[in-house]
Amino acid sequence: MIVQLKKSISPEHLEDVVNRIESRGYKVTEVNTVEGKYLIGLGKAEIDLREFGHIPGIIDIHRVSDDYKLVSRKWKVKPSVVDLGDGVSIGEGSFTEMAGPCSIESEEQINMSLDHLLENNVKIMRGGVYKPRSSPYSFRGLGIDGLKLWHRLAKAKGIKIISEVMQVSQIEAMYPYVDVFQVGARNTQNFNLLDELGRVDKPVLIKRGISGTVDELLYSAEYVFSAGNEKLILCERGIRTYERSSRNTLDINAIPILKEKSHLPVIADPSHAIGIRRHVPDVALACVMAGADGIIFETHKNPEEAFSDGQQTLDFRESAKLIRAMRETYALRQSFYA
Amino acid sequence: MIVQLKKSISPEHLEDVVNRIESRGYKVTEVNTVEGKYLIGLGKAEIDLREFGHIPGIIDIHRVSDDYKLVSRKWKVKPSVVDLGDGVSIGEGSFTEMAGPCSIESEEQINMSLDHLLENNVKIMRGGVYKPRSSPYSFRGLGIDGLKLWHRLAKAKGIKIISEVMQVSQIEAMYPYVDVFQVGARNTQNFNLLDELGRVDKPVLIKRGISGTVDELLYSAEYVFSAGNEKLILCERGIRTYERSSRNTLDINAIPILKEKSHLPVIADPSHAIGIRRHVPDVALACVMAGADGIIFETHKNPEEAFSDGQQTLDFRESAKLIRAMRETYALRQSFYA
Amino acid sequence: MIVQLKKSISPEHLEDVVNRIESRGYKVTEVNTVEGKYLIGLGKAEIDLREFGHIPGIIDIHRVSDDYKLVSRKWKVKPSVVDLGDGVSIGEGSFTEMAGPCSIESEEQINMSLDHLLENNVKIMRGGVYKPRSSPYSFRGLGIDGLKLWHRLAKAKGIKIISEVMQVSQIEAMYPYVDVFQVGARNTQNFNLLDELGRVDKPVLIKRGISGTVDELLYSAEYVFSAGNEKLILCERGIRTYERSSRNTLDINAIPILKEKSHLPVIADPSHAIGIRRHVPDVALACVMAGADGIIFETHKNPEEAFSDGQQTLDFRESAKLIRAMRETYALRQSFYA
Amino acid sequence: MIVQLKKSISPEHLEDVVNRIESRGYKVTEVNTVEGKYLIGLGKAEIDLREFGHIPGIIDIHRVSDDYKLVSRKWKVKPSVVDLGDGVSIGEGSFTEMAGPCSIESEEQINMSLDHLLENNVKIMRGGVYKPRSSPYSFRGLGIDGLKLWHRLAKAKGIKIISEVMQVSQIEAMYPYVDVFQVGARNTQNFNLLDELGRVDKPVLIKRGISGTVDELLYSAEYVFSAGNEKLILCERGIRTYERSSRNTLDINAIPILKEKSHLPVIADPSHAIGIRRHVPDVALACVMAGADGIIFETHKNPEEAFSDGQQTLDFRESAKLIRAMRETYALRQSFYA
Repeated sequence: MIVQLKKSISPEHLEDVVNRIESRGYKVTEVNTVEGKYLIGLGKAEIDLREFGHIPGIIDIHRVSDDYKLVSRKWKVKPSVVDLGDGVSIGEGSFTEMAGPCSIESEEQINMSLDHLLENNVKIMRGGVYKPRSSPYSFRGLGIDGLKLWHRLAKAKGIKIISEVMQVSQIEAMYPYVDVFQVGARNTQNFNLLDELGRVDKPVLIKRGISGTVDELLYSAEYVFSAGNEKLILCERGIRTYERSSRNTLDINAIPILKEKSHLPVIADPSHAIGIRRHVPDVALACVMAGADGIIFETHKNPEEAFSDGQQTLDFRESAKLIRAMRETYALRQSFYA
Repeated sequence: MIVQLKKSISPEHLEDVVNRIESRGYKVTEVNTVEGKYLIGLGKAEIDLREFGHIPGIIDIHRVSDDYKLVSRKWKVKPSVVDLGDGVSIGEGSFTEMAGPCSIESEEQINMSLDHLLENNVKIMRGGVYKPRSSPYSFRGLGIDGLKLWHRLAKAKGIKIISEVMQVSQIEAMYPYVDVFQVGARNTQNFNLLDELGRVDKPVLIKRGISGTVDELLYSAEYVFSAGNEKLILCERGIRTYERSSRNTLDINAIPILKEKSHLPVIADPSHAIGIRRHVPDVALACVMAGADGIIFETHKNPEEAFSDGQQTLDFRESAKLIRAMRETYALRQSFYA
Repeated sequence: MIVQLKKSISPEHLEDVVNRIESRGYKVTEVNTVEGKYLIGLGKAEIDLREFGHIPGIIDIHRVSDDYKLVSRKWKVKPSVVDLGDGVSIGEGSFTEMAGPCSIESEEQINMSLDHLLENNVKIMRGGVYKPRSSPYSFRGLGIDGLKLWHRLAKAKGIKIISEVMQVSQIEAMYPYVDVFQVGARNTQNFNLLDELGRVDKPVLIKRGISGTVDELLYSAEYVFSAGNEKLILCERGIRTYERSSRNTLDINAIPILKEKSHLPVIADPSHAIGIRRHVPDVALACVMAGADGIIFETHKNPEEAFSDGQQTLDFRESAKLIRAMRETYALRQSFYA
Repeated sequence: MIVQLKKSISPEHLEDVVNRIESRGYKVTEVNTVEGKYLIGLGKAEIDLREFGHIPGIIDIHRVSDDYKLVSRKWKVKPSVVDLGDGVSIGEGSFTEMAGPCSIESEEQINMSLDHLLENNVKIMRGGVYKPRSSPYSFRGLGIDGLKLWHRLAKAKGIKIISEVMQVSQIEAMYPYVDVFQVGARNTQNFNLLDELGRVDKPVLIKRGISGTVDELLYSAEYVFSAGNEKLILCERGIRTYERSSRNTLDINAIPILKEKSHLPVIADPSHAIGIRRHVPDVALACVMAGADGIIFETHKNPEEAFSDGQQTLDFRESAKLIRAMRETYALRQSFYA
């Protein structure tokens, strides 16, 4: 059960609501976000909503049968839109591109990427400064100094930044320099990290785990939301299967399923899914047609010279062509539902 | 190595070619189809093609590094088109819909399905008369009598038939009544069945195995081709993974990968992949955008009353809407490559 | 519901029982095996067993909540023992080894294998004469002539034969020469083959599918049983997963789970599971300790020269050592449950 | 390449070695643990070891072709033993039990568990005070206070403690109270956590990821070792597959494979693998027979009342029986290799 409250609810009324729900054997969690105030009630007893529905300060009460609550579409039928400021938003009714290199490498590389985005009217640049790597001896990214440089250059050109955060201690350091925190596939169930990101007022994009289920992705989003941050974006990026002809198996089914189960925007990452440069556009366009609210993909001036993931990175010509095709595809899809 | 031969090659010249290849330690298989004549040479030694390339009756010689040969795009760069007669063909340059019920049930049901296809200009009807079922106590289809009835009705309306063959002994019985033999996901590696279908001159659609790899699907097609039948269609229908929110995980990556590895047409089956009626259109459209040459899907006048698979079957209104959307999507995709 | 009947039940009484069950809306299947006679009733209504439990010819009536019935342990709590004649049996209370080469190759190879088994008191020899191969160009086995040769040599030395049957048409040809028909992992859901093996009075060993579930294996056994043959053996042989360091992931959990769900004997195949010769013994012994009733493994005089699967085949010294260790391990396990 | 150094090597000689290796285009990482000093050299050029093998302070030089180095058995053929002090050690030549509840709950529960271990001569108690939970609303453990209480009681009875650490910030707090840090399956690729555990001088047990490969587990161990801590234990706990009859598929193959690839001790966790209480002993014994150096399992005075994982937790009678059986099984296995 979710009880939507006015932020202005009086302490007495709040206590009254909590007491009445707890008296039915429910466990109650209070959630405060920038946008709203909620009580999550977990229990099995039948509750007669009339017993407390009249208390001043209650906006609405929703029964939610899913085990995840706040991210469920059962109580919030209207899709959420995540606002990044400056007229940039993600979700329902618009299509979002996030593009850029796997790793942030140098001032020159950043500038070339920014110019490419500007030319193609892309508002958000992706890039890694902390890189999760299987081997401890691999390149692990430029770190916070790389991020500061990137931020300075991007801000000057009006481009937003999304970048991966790998641990709690990086949140504070990264905070001034990112517009969206990205949680990578190896951290989808790093519950401490999710908890802490719930205490931040910037958007969080959560990638599905390497072998995570759709439900686990929703639970991970519930962690962030229930800790206080409802600016959330889900990302399908392929799952681990027995198939070896591609890097990961993009679960195209997950896109309409996530859109139906949750009110949160859903983005897809074709680059990490198929992992083969020449096939990235086909998969990207398929994701748009399946209902994705946006696509995050890797592009680089010279993919062959990229520090990482060059084999799945588009060059700028391919990237520009894909961006145009995605927009046409999105428009066609919208026309089907007009 | 594939040696393409004229059908008119003299026995002496044929023997000469075979001898020269075998003398290099190669194992040689002769393949005769309705369309052509081939020698497949398997070996590791270097061969100087000039040693026998001049022999009369040789059209061309291709080195093919893939382990599958005849189905590889390494020797036949131009996509194959499978002709069903009466102006119906599958593959490059056109988009094919195959629609119909999971199981053939009755004369009335067949007629309603045929009328629906006619109204929407769909040329091929799908339906099962032999049903592979996990439990021996489940409905196993109407069998050959159902197929004869269906054939009589479909022929009268000019609609082609695709239906699943489950065992060798059914091939001869079904032969007069089907236009395309379908090999189901549980029979993708039924090598005896594939061998026998190689001796037939009607097209064969092979579904990917329940947990089959892309390469295994190509090998299965190689079985049919090397036994003498090159009228082949590949079908992606989802694979078994740990994810439980959908019936199978449609491997969208497989569509561009199969199209690149093989010259054969690639069809997708969204119904069995996602297994959820309301999401079938999103997945179908995604497959079209990923490059599929056609879509096979389940539709029924009253999905709720279908003998099987009702939960993933579209009604005729949904089906008609999907057909229109697929054609628009295909046209948009074609425009990207014009 | 399973109704166990006397074979001598009168036609009138049989009809009476069937009618009474069908009158409750149940679908009834009559099953006749060499050993017994059964009615399988599928339905949802409550039935008062007293209504027909008194009819002469009924031995017992069992409610079975599993979807598979005859293979379930819910009605037959005592483990089944499959008798091969000549004092050789498989199942509860004894441990069975089946050993031999992947492929039957020659008279000399067969004789060396038989001698090795005799020396180690192994009663059953495995070997393939029909080989399912991914590629149509690979060695597909010696066929029926190889089987006849093998049978002649084995019979002379008192060794039983288990060999894979790949299609319906092979059953009759193989019948005089095998003691156990083996259904391979690619044919676990070849329902026509299973149906036909139900009409045979020789034992059938069914391997779990390449990505088959435990339940699907039980359903496949139900096919054979319900078609008339209850001499069944289940075989765990590893499943397909994302892990690449071994050939298949042996599902050790499946052994106790199958033993609990079904009364049928359970055998394990460590050779195909791990696929690495030096590790086969560790996995074999683990399976014994998990409760397997026997082990089927590959051994060859010269594994390096075997026609197939040499990389996972033990030589005779390793084989003899493993046989001794398995027997000691089985004895220890039995002592835990004494 | 791994260069084993004396801790007493002079700065000049160290610099000399590093320079000579780097001059060949290698990247060199210096690793200092409590036990030793190493240089890891990554590169592709051929190096003539005679060029620097004579420099004082070098113990040995090993070529290691694996991508992981320090955890590989290619340079350290002799299995490692992890010493916990007070005569308790893990690895080669001895068998280790770790038992206890899923969650630490209360003083009474801890004491009953400790007494059970004492009675059965088990030296290490497992238990969670920080619990990773899919849902943010589930019980997340007693935290550091629970650990302090547990430590006080366990120390009094001479029992060692293993407990899961979920994030970097917990390491310092937990340090005085644990004997072994456990890294859970959701944190196997939490590289920051692994890095920090490399700076600790207490043993670390790393569980295989939920869908982690054998190689990824070894890489994760390499993280800890290369950051300075070589007291490492690997743990197989089952992987995620499509099979639903058990909680996870225990990869029995992984036990001999890990033992061959690495010199580190390998432990198995049957409780989380099969997840079904009555089958835990069969799987545990199988793991012992496959070569595990120890077993970690869940036991509780009253499994039905446990805060978590009760369905897979043994009661003390079952636990005692299993402990005896594991020791007999281990002894039998040792006899095979005597």
